[in-house]
Amino acid sequence: MQVAIVGGTGAQGRGLAARLAAAGVAVLVGSREAAHAREVVRALKEGHEGLSIEPATNEDAIARSDLVLLTVPFAHAAAALQASRERFRSGSVLIDVTVPVAFEKGVPRLVEVPEGSACEHLRRLLPEHVGMAAAFKTLPAATLATLDEPLDCDEFVCGDSPAARSRALELAAKIPGLRPVDSGELEAARTIERMTVLAIGINKRYRIRSARFRVVGL
Amino acid sequence: MQVAIVGGTGAQGRGLAARLAAAGVAVLVGSREAAHAREVVRALKEGHEGLSIEPATNEDAIARSDLVLLTVPFAHAAAALQASRERFRSGSVLIDVTVPVAFEKGVPRLVEVPEGSACEHLRRLLPEHVGMAAAFKTLPAATLATLDEPLDCDEFVCGDSPAARSRALELAAKIPGLRPVDSGELEAARTIERMTVLAIGINKRYRIRSARFRVVGL
Repeated sequence: MQVAIVGGTGAQGRGLAARLAAAGVAVLVGSREAAHAREVVRALKEGHEGLSIEPATNEDAIARSDLVLLTVPFAHAAAALQASRERFRSGSVLIDVTVPVAFEKGVPRLVEVPEGSACEHLRRLLPEHVGMAAAFKTLPAATLATLDEPLDCDEFVCGDSPAARSRALELAAKIPGLRPVDSGELEAARTIERMTVLAIGINKRYRIRSARFRVVGL
Repeated sequence: MQVAIVGGTGAQGRGLAARLAAAGVAVLVGSREAAHAREVVRALKEGHEGLSIEPATNEDAIARSDLVLLTVPFAHAAAALQASRERFRSGSVLIDVTVPVAFEKGVPRLVEVPEGSACEHLRRLLPEHVGMAAAFKTLPAATLATLDEPLDCDEFVCGDSPAARSRALELAAKIPGLRPVDSGELEAARTIERMTVLAIGINKRYRIRSARFRVVGL
């Protein structure tokens, strides 16, 4: 299994690259600048020589993968997709990891988008033949980055088709300590993105960095 | 500590009445019809003779309590508050437990309200001197009702003032196995209510009845 991570040089992207590669997934770390991707990949591999992580430009990463993670900041997500929409492979799946969050006087708030969620907003920018799912939105970057810290939590996965959702569920299941939870249609991203904002608020209120979720009773 | 439960004869109300009374809180179970409240209280006390649970009409329950839980179905919540808004004690706190959910072909969906959440919608119907908080929205009725099943989960609490939020946090902390999580301003109800809809969806998808949440890393 191979994945491309568009914006893989950011905190969420680097954490996911490390966790996925450690789980045996071949990872392409994409960046707008190939040199930056090379630098990040060099740092990620330090002390972990066997990991399959390669640098690429975002556009090349997309062209080379059937499964693409989008981890750029939400403010840059539309531009990133518009620049590379022609590069998506036929039948590939984009897993959106963005969260539309802004801070007002230190308080995290959801940036409202007309479609109800970042996912539904970005879905409109993709070619029809590309499937879309959401995953990894509620995982704190600080926890992802610390490879020896068990994730010990759930991840909520939704998608615009059962096939896209299955691909994302399957990928999430590869990461040890992470249990993917089928959360239904893409519209569930409205809830999942808000949960990330809630977790950031809990982090601030309780002075922690690693609030995340588990479903009890499942 | 004493609480009134408006609509305390429904599934969520009965479960909360039992859990709170078992924790030593004096509970007034309110109903539109006093006879129905009496019947429910009789059933709740069966086999638990020592519990402090009393029946009342909704309006009397409100008039006799500084802390009022609203557990009617969302569709009846506005009417219930409008019928009794003059009965609230000065400085009392209403804890909204309602969730605006409807089912389309078996799929649970949030009923959109212009204010963004049931809480914010209902807040407008309350007198200024009454504080408002949200709590107990994500607890499944089936789990609440089974007193010997540990809750073992968190409850998200938000409020329109630090005072109202504190009162709700304090009440939730009395229930064994339930950890209240300070979730900030009343606007957080937009997230919390959606999480209940997500949990109902997970229940349906995984054929369980008791999906609820815990914050990991806290």
